[in-house]
Amino acid sequence: MKINKKIGLLLEKIREKGPLVHHLTNYVTVNDCANITLAIGASPVMADDINEVKDMVSLASSLVINIGTLNSRTVESMLAAGKKANERGIPVILDPVGAGATPYRTEVAKKILGDIKLSVIRGNISEIKALCGLDSVTKGVDAAEAISHDKDKISAEMDFARKAAKKLKAVIAITGAIDIITNGESLYTVENGHKIMSRVTGTGCMCSSLIGSCLGTGEDILTAALSGVAAMGIAGEVAYEKVKEKNLGTGSLKVYIIDEIFKINKETIIKRGKIYEQ
Amino acid sequence: MKINKKIGLLLEKIREKGPLVHHLTNYVTVNDCANITLAIGASPVMADDINEVKDMVSLASSLVINIGTLNSRTVESMLAAGKKANERGIPVILDPVGAGATPYRTEVAKKILGDIKLSVIRGNISEIKALCGLDSVTKGVDAAEAISHDKDKISAEMDFARKAAKKLKAVIAITGAIDIITNGESLYTVENGHKIMSRVTGTGCMCSSLIGSCLGTGEDILTAALSGVAAMGIAGEVAYEKVKEKNLGTGSLKVYIIDEIFKINKETIIKRGKIYEQ
Amino acid sequence: MKINKKIGLLLEKIREKGPLVHHLTNYVTVNDCANITLAIGASPVMADDINEVKDMVSLASSLVINIGTLNSRTVESMLAAGKKANERGIPVILDPVGAGATPYRTEVAKKILGDIKLSVIRGNISEIKALCGLDSVTKGVDAAEAISHDKDKISAEMDFARKAAKKLKAVIAITGAIDIITNGESLYTVENGHKIMSRVTGTGCMCSSLIGSCLGTGEDILTAALSGVAAMGIAGEVAYEKVKEKNLGTGSLKVYIIDEIFKINKETIIKRGKIYEQ
Repeated sequence: MKINKKIGLLLEKIREKGPLVHHLTNYVTVNDCANITLAIGASPVMADDINEVKDMVSLASSLVINIGTLNSRTVESMLAAGKKANERGIPVILDPVGAGATPYRTEVAKKILGDIKLSVIRGNISEIKALCGLDSVTKGVDAAEAISHDKDKISAEMDFARKAAKKLKAVIAITGAIDIITNGESLYTVENGHKIMSRVTGTGCMCSSLIGSCLGTGEDILTAALSGVAAMGIAGEVAYEKVKEKNLGTGSLKVYIIDEIFKINKETIIKRGKIYEQ
Repeated sequence: MKINKKIGLLLEKIREKGPLVHHLTNYVTVNDCANITLAIGASPVMADDINEVKDMVSLASSLVINIGTLNSRTVESMLAAGKKANERGIPVILDPVGAGATPYRTEVAKKILGDIKLSVIRGNISEIKALCGLDSVTKGVDAAEAISHDKDKISAEMDFARKAAKKLKAVIAITGAIDIITNGESLYTVENGHKIMSRVTGTGCMCSSLIGSCLGTGEDILTAALSGVAAMGIAGEVAYEKVKEKNLGTGSLKVYIIDEIFKINKETIIKRGKIYEQ
Repeated sequence: MKINKKIGLLLEKIREKGPLVHHLTNYVTVNDCANITLAIGASPVMADDINEVKDMVSLASSLVINIGTLNSRTVESMLAAGKKANERGIPVILDPVGAGATPYRTEVAKKILGDIKLSVIRGNISEIKALCGLDSVTKGVDAAEAISHDKDKISAEMDFARKAAKKLKAVIAITGAIDIITNGESLYTVENGHKIMSRVTGTGCMCSSLIGSCLGTGEDILTAALSGVAAMGIAGEVAYEKVKEKNLGTGSLKVYIIDEIFKINKETIIKRGKIYEQ
């Protein structure tokens, strides 16, 4: 329970500090990313023009790069922003949406990996495998393979995650049925959440924004990544219970996820968090 | 009731197959399009860069082109994606948002019509008239004339729709107070929905995404177009009843439309569908 | 109460006329801007390509320029659209999102100010100060300083607003804990709203869309600006009461704000409006 309490305290720190989280992200889920960042107590900004990204990074406490709808204009801005963030020493998180789905996407993700020092990479298992040069099956921007509860499989995936963290020199957060967060040495699993979350676009992107919000406090990287993932899982789980109770659907689920992030606090994390050091 | 049952079975097929629906769409309603595609059981992807659209189309089961906020960069991607879809033989649906409102918009819509073999065109009556070279009054992206319940008018509109389908060589779905779906021979009307739906942006775009989801199963084109329209009408109608009962507004209406698409099934279609072969 | 009634009557006029409000806006809050414009009874259109903006402005009753996610492509469109709007004599409203945060943003805002005759500028206090060349602290796109209830401070801010209106030759609407609306001579404050609204992205942008909707009726500029601000404040306040009663969060708050704008009428404005001529 010690880790749950630590995460709970970090949430309070976000609300106290209100860090500015600069996003270079996609136009599909950008509104949800902004709203979840505000809900957890941070401030989002989504400027993406090459003429101002470096200036905006100079005001920010962390940077989230999400390649969901990358294009040549925004890729240039991502690289410039990332380099500026490295210069300033603020943490950068990469959400390599759909890496592996098209050569361009994989190539851009690798370019970012090569040019920018990343603190956290959050993706599904297919995306992280693609970044490691492993063959993987993606289905557009969704993972074609799921992290399952099968004991042997999950153990293999934890091994993979540790290796990926070492190879990519970043904390890796692989989200799925069971979430895996590791710096290559320490490894945590989070068993919150519900599979219905994959029927709402942007739950992954929003999780990356939450990690960005946590990182913006100056917290250590592994704890920040773990906190963002745990908060998302718990909010999704509580939101699902309400949706089920009221016989609603995925439209309401998205609204309730943001509601639950707004309301989440130390007590909820302590009570609900299924967070295990492995 | 035979057609209702057929539509109901198609919905089950979407959930079983989970087809990937590639969208080149606008930034106003893109999030709702993604969420409704997920809600009905398909997978959306919204990549729009010229460097990857062909590769993404190669993974997809259908392609939705929506010109709501077209620009020269994305028009090029739309044409490339459409040609690739034709090459691969996957269905393409065009949503000619605002055709007729500006010369550029009409010209781009006609360029798409000329270069790409379309399976379905879904629009309001003004947009479809503009594509046929008929004068029509549009009001921005909204139809300035409405399909009414007037018997003579609706009969003239059905004649027009049949001619448009032959001229444009595609199944035409004209949505309005009464929806008309035709391949030039067979013609169906759908009398579900509620006029409040026009006070939510993107109900047309979402309908096109649903048609794309239906087409992604390999179903015949007329049935797929009809199914998407019927599902949207029924979901909108049920959502409106809830909004009215709870004294809410159009913010809630949008959320409930996605909820109802998530919950829609064969039984609902059979019970609710006001679908008539003319 | 005379002003409340006047505002209430203006709302009825929007619903009767349904003015077309052209937006050149950001991709973060564009969907909410479209939906709130529809909710109040106007019609939104968001075309932003240089090839069509002038034609679209020719159909519109007002133009909203919002620089939230400006880039070189859209800035060119903003300037072309603004000039066309001036030519046609339709009102232009500027939302200088994040002015002062980066040099590029401030420069673009000033370029727009220099080239286009504006009817209304709506922003937070930091943004309006930046436009006037005053030093101000912004935090990304959020005001770093808040309009407070402190009597001396609010009095200084009213003085500043009057001067800004004269200097910038436009009606100024500064939104915050207390909203200030002035043409340089007459000045109104609105004391509706709730601070939780700042935890939802786009409440400022939506307010600008409401002002654009009010202006589209041909109403005098000061009343239109005041009406948009008052409607947003009242809707936010009622939405907050529901959120609090049901123990929800900011996801639901956004949905309810749109609901309340859809339902708002003369009676609500008369009963709820805390609108004071100073």
